[in-house]
Amino acid sequence: MNEPLAPDAQQGLIRLRGDVSYDGKEFSGWGLQPGRRTVQGVIEETLSTVLRQERVAIQCAGRTDAGVHARGQVIHFDLPIEAMLEMDDLLFKINSLLPEDVAIRKFQITSSDFDARFAALSRSYVYSIYQGERDPLLRDWAYRSWIPLDLTAMHEASQDLLGLHDFAAFCRKREGSTTIRTLTRFDWHETDDGIFQADLSADAFCYSMVRALVGAVISIGEGKRDKEWLVSYLEGKTREPAVFAAPAHGLVFQSVEYPPESEFVERISQTLRMRPPHGTH
Amino acid sequence: MNEPLAPDAQQGLIRLRGDVSYDGKEFSGWGLQPGRRTVQGVIEETLSTVLRQERVAIQCAGRTDAGVHARGQVIHFDLPIEAMLEMDDLLFKINSLLPEDVAIRKFQITSSDFDARFAALSRSYVYSIYQGERDPLLRDWAYRSWIPLDLTAMHEASQDLLGLHDFAAFCRKREGSTTIRTLTRFDWHETDDGIFQADLSADAFCYSMVRALVGAVISIGEGKRDKEWLVSYLEGKTREPAVFAAPAHGLVFQSVEYPPESEFVERISQTLRMRPPHGTH
Repeated sequence: MNEPLAPDAQQGLIRLRGDVSYDGKEFSGWGLQPGRRTVQGVIEETLSTVLRQERVAIQCAGRTDAGVHARGQVIHFDLPIEAMLEMDDLLFKINSLLPEDVAIRKFQITSSDFDARFAALSRSYVYSIYQGERDPLLRDWAYRSWIPLDLTAMHEASQDLLGLHDFAAFCRKREGSTTIRTLTRFDWHETDDGIFQADLSADAFCYSMVRALVGAVISIGEGKRDKEWLVSYLEGKTREPAVFAAPAHGLVFQSVEYPPESEFVERISQTLRMRPPHGTH
Repeated sequence: MNEPLAPDAQQGLIRLRGDVSYDGKEFSGWGLQPGRRTVQGVIEETLSTVLRQERVAIQCAGRTDAGVHARGQVIHFDLPIEAMLEMDDLLFKINSLLPEDVAIRKFQITSSDFDARFAALSRSYVYSIYQGERDPLLRDWAYRSWIPLDLTAMHEASQDLLGLHDFAAFCRKREGSTTIRTLTRFDWHETDDGIFQADLSADAFCYSMVRALVGAVISIGEGKRDKEWLVSYLEGKTREPAVFAAPAHGLVFQSVEYPPESEFVERISQTLRMRPPHGTH
């Protein structure tokens, strides 16, 4: 072992953090589903094989929908100390066995107070859109808009959604879970290659919230709706099926931000007060 | 027809220029090969179907190897006037029938003096490299280097290759064809995402020349060779199998530059003097 063991190592378990990247195209999303190929399923199976455990259960920072990609998903899991390998060996063995559309980019031993989901301060996503004729090089990474989009109008409208709101109009309702979130960033810009990109950050997003936010703003970019509509739609707190959710393949889960280790416990109890565990994340 | 016909239309034929984009992953390169799926084969078949011709033979600006991608390949072909459709219809019908890994981005009627290959002033390619752990989101678009690369050393060494040279050391020799080319750009930079990219331009490239140039410079980035070696290798004019050709999947054929229409004929005769048609392009 190259690093000192975290405190709980003495109790026989060690907690690992992994940073995960995947191409969502061939996955039925993150979470385990019987008979479906899911990111969680594929990673857990590989970890169990390499670590010779019956099951290694992993927790993630944010479950992604079918087709959504990730550049900075974060996971944690616990291991009996005696199952542990050298970190470099572990990374190499896991990535050799994982299929080519998913990889662990980094492993580290972490405090057993760390929780990939509840210790997170915020999550960031990127959504990409292109216009014009069909582009084979972008087909799996960006949504193609048939209608020319007004980038400035989209950026301006998005600013009105920032802050602490009940985002029920953009969330699929779940019994007993809150739809109150703090959206801290929703910026649009054009890349050198002419792709329109949205950068979104929030303490957490409800199920399908990013795609619903982007879809609503696209309808403003198309000139079908305006920013006044967006504000009143947010305030209506009711999801309307006519408001389109942007397709999954344009979305990348970019990163998760955590506090320093000394604040894990405080952050987790704060999160649990705000968003009890049966809510989505 | 929305545009005036080019002069030769009176003789019953019309020349079209198409700008083509493809994901090279599932193609055995550009050129027709019996029993193989090639970009030329797929496009010619689709054009023949849409235009109800027995065969529509297309010419391209630069034949690409198996696995190489294109964002700005250019083609031309001739059609009997009576087979011609409205341009918008043509684009829509072709792209509806083409598989999703290839598309015509643009069509235009051009002078019958235009030649996608011989009228070209220059071709530009982009090569992408990433370092660190395997990345599922880059696996089809960038070469992964296991060894940390020195970007500055790569950029500096590349500058020594600029200008008019006999690039025989970087070309597969073909009977009766010249390996003399003018390399006008070979710049390296790092993108915001940490990808190392080379931008290369030349009047034309020999078969596999871009990948051989990039491969040689990578060995300098790895610290295995130095810029003095590169110059002497160029001057040796002999291809050595030990000099690695960078893998095809990191390469994108980016664009082709043409003179204004009034100079097509002059440019074509100039090209034919320098590089007779049995040479590669």
